[in-house]
Amino acid sequence: MIYKDEYPSALLEEAVDQLSSLPGIGRKTALRLALHILKQPQENVNHFGESFIKMRRDIKYCKRCNMVSDTDVCSICSDSHRDNSLICVVESLRDLLSIESTGEYRGKYFVLGGIISPMDGIGPDDLPISQLEKIIAEGNVKEVIMAIATSIEGETTSFYLYKILSKYQIKLSTIARGVGFGDDLEYTDRLTLGKSIANRQPIQI
Amino acid sequence: MIYKDEYPSALLEEAVDQLSSLPGIGRKTALRLALHILKQPQENVNHFGESFIKMRRDIKYCKRCNMVSDTDVCSICSDSHRDNSLICVVESLRDLLSIESTGEYRGKYFVLGGIISPMDGIGPDDLPISQLEKIIAEGNVKEVIMAIATSIEGETTSFYLYKILSKYQIKLSTIARGVGFGDDLEYTDRLTLGKSIANRQPIQI
Repeated sequence: MIYKDEYPSALLEEAVDQLSSLPGIGRKTALRLALHILKQPQENVNHFGESFIKMRRDIKYCKRCNMVSDTDVCSICSDSHRDNSLICVVESLRDLLSIESTGEYRGKYFVLGGIISPMDGIGPDDLPISQLEKIIAEGNVKEVIMAIATSIEGETTSFYLYKILSKYQIKLSTIARGVGFGDDLEYTDRLTLGKSIANRQPIQI
Repeated sequence: MIYKDEYPSALLEEAVDQLSSLPGIGRKTALRLALHILKQPQENVNHFGESFIKMRRDIKYCKRCNMVSDTDVCSICSDSHRDNSLICVVESLRDLLSIESTGEYRGKYFVLGGIISPMDGIGPDDLPISQLEKIIAEGNVKEVIMAIATSIEGETTSFYLYKILSKYQIKLSTIARGVGFGDDLEYTDRLTLGKSIANRQPIQI
């Protein structure tokens, strides 16, 4: 290469740098994307760039459940058709959207925004647990469902929440873990398969 | 889903829309990227968004070879250490960068910015061929190397260029096609393997 820099233009290089800072985007992909952006009309590119700046600046987090929202209280928390007595605790918005997409859940949510992870310097005090307690203290909640990952950090977080919340007169539950529907037993990991036998369910007809 | 829209925030939705307009980025990846962007400091996001707007607005194309550049004439065209008598014609900047990365080529380039493709409404007049002729007419060029894809459109473009340029007293060549170094003959496509026998080279020791 004849360039001190990787690309023949510092402007292109900067755009590639920015794109490759995104998770899962390498420099080759970033170059492909940057050249695609370069071919678009200026107006579209302005719109493209500004959409991120605007999102970061103007997005709100629901005062009750911490979900991203355009309003102070999100559309789920303010939906009177949803069951107020159920709260599903999730780590992130992505997990929330996954549960929503099943169409099986009609309660409310609480987004932790992270899990307890000493390695990353995240302790219980960094999570909005007191905010969750405040909602429970209102007295409408009958059950809190933990939908948190089964990693060491996730289990720690679930356990911590369990300890904190067990002082309230509410049911505490966790989503069912087991062999996925349609999965082959042969290819299921031993831990899941073992637990699925230990936690076997009575057949309901 | 309870949303008319896919996401709980129109701002998030807009950012996901914009990201998923990029080639090879689906909506799930776009959401992941948007949430990553959302977690960055505002300053970084401003920088991120503006880098594309600025690139699109301020980037130049070299007046000689059409390569993207920050100056009117690019760093390769203005490099007096590179061989003025050789021009390598490529379709895109990405092809140019690929050739540059080999370190094997010390001549100049000419970026077509596209190939003749009636299906996409691109005819010979849409390519900057007269600009290439002008460079050749200066009299320094001794050889033009075509490094254009072997698709139907690529071959058409090479043939068209060949016809146009054959009126000049210059050598016209194309990059060598054949079985890649380290490739198994067994896995080489029949066309490449057939041509590699027809175009066999004398062994030089």
